[in-house]
Amino acid sequence: MSERNGFVVWLTGLSAAGKSTIAGIVAGELEQRGVLVERLDGDVVRENLTKDLGFSKEDRDENVARIGWVASRVARAGAGVVVSAISPYDEARKIARSRVEEHAAFVLVYVATSIEECTRRDPKGLYARANAGEIATFTGVSDPYEEPADAELRIQTEGRTPEESAALVLAKLEELGLLRQEVAA
Amino acid sequence: MSERNGFVVWLTGLSAAGKSTIAGIVAGELEQRGVLVERLDGDVVRENLTKDLGFSKEDRDENVARIGWVASRVARAGAGVVVSAISPYDEARKIARSRVEEHAAFVLVYVATSIEECTRRDPKGLYARANAGEIATFTGVSDPYEEPADAELRIQTEGRTPEESAALVLAKLEELGLLRQEVAA
Repeated sequence: MSERNGFVVWLTGLSAAGKSTIAGIVAGELEQRGVLVERLDGDVVRENLTKDLGFSKEDRDENVARIGWVASRVARAGAGVVVSAISPYDEARKIARSRVEEHAAFVLVYVATSIEECTRRDPKGLYARANAGEIATFTGVSDPYEEPADAELRIQTEGRTPEESAALVLAKLEELGLLRQEVAA
Repeated sequence: MSERNGFVVWLTGLSAAGKSTIAGIVAGELEQRGVLVERLDGDVVRENLTKDLGFSKEDRDENVARIGWVASRVARAGAGVVVSAISPYDEARKIARSRVEEHAAFVLVYVATSIEECTRRDPKGLYARANAGEIATFTGVSDPYEEPADAELRIQTEGRTPEESAALVLAKLEELGLLRQEVAA
């Protein structure tokens, strides 16, 4: 059988940027529209696939490589894959992209919440700890985040609800021909 | 969309039992019959997903767990997944089975080539080295292989060509309703 037309939507951004929340809304809406969806959330993947890995550059890159490999296999099988992972390094993201693009479309979404806003939200108190010097490799504080120049979509989340941000992702998928436009009944 | 009807065929057995050869023939035939196929070969998976792992029981179990997790995701997306991996421990195979069976059928195939025959073949000279005491954890020699009692199919490969063994796998898939029977033209 020829390969099906799956795709990968990959949300990158800082911790607490809103990636998982937006990904969840996007996934739900895709399912509503008849797409078979697979969520690959960074934290869940770490549990199933990469619990051996830490937060060094090498380990973060390996984490992204494994997510990219799995995403490529699942998208090849026809699913719409929604990834949410900090994925801070440009080169590792590009490797994931090229791997996926052998089989399916890759849509990089930069959830561009500012470090100030993420620090203000800080749902797990991690920014506070990182700023106190308690976390040696915390992205955006004590570890780099390389902003993507190749994102298909950059979302300025401040001043937008997660639903509004998710709508931008869905509109991009429609624009790219990966999702049929919804027609009002 | 409701989940598609993928499945996982999981070939277990000793090193040099013929798992990969049979898996390759099965995969090719499935593709001929219009099934979108994903091969997950133990050696390939170690490269992409589990290169951190060694050959202790713990690491072998983690290897099988990761293959099982990926197989479950890809089968859920609708593919026919063909796994070939020594997967020597019963409990780890059962965990993989239950994970897959949340979404798709799981067909365990025991490629039951005897240790004597595997030692005779020894394509990589590994049995010779293991028998000389040079490999501390070599399945069947210095490390256990737990024969499955829950295999859907046990193939006695000796006296059969790989093509004949593969035909048994395909017949089993037909019998289980996972593959349409081929009708002579």
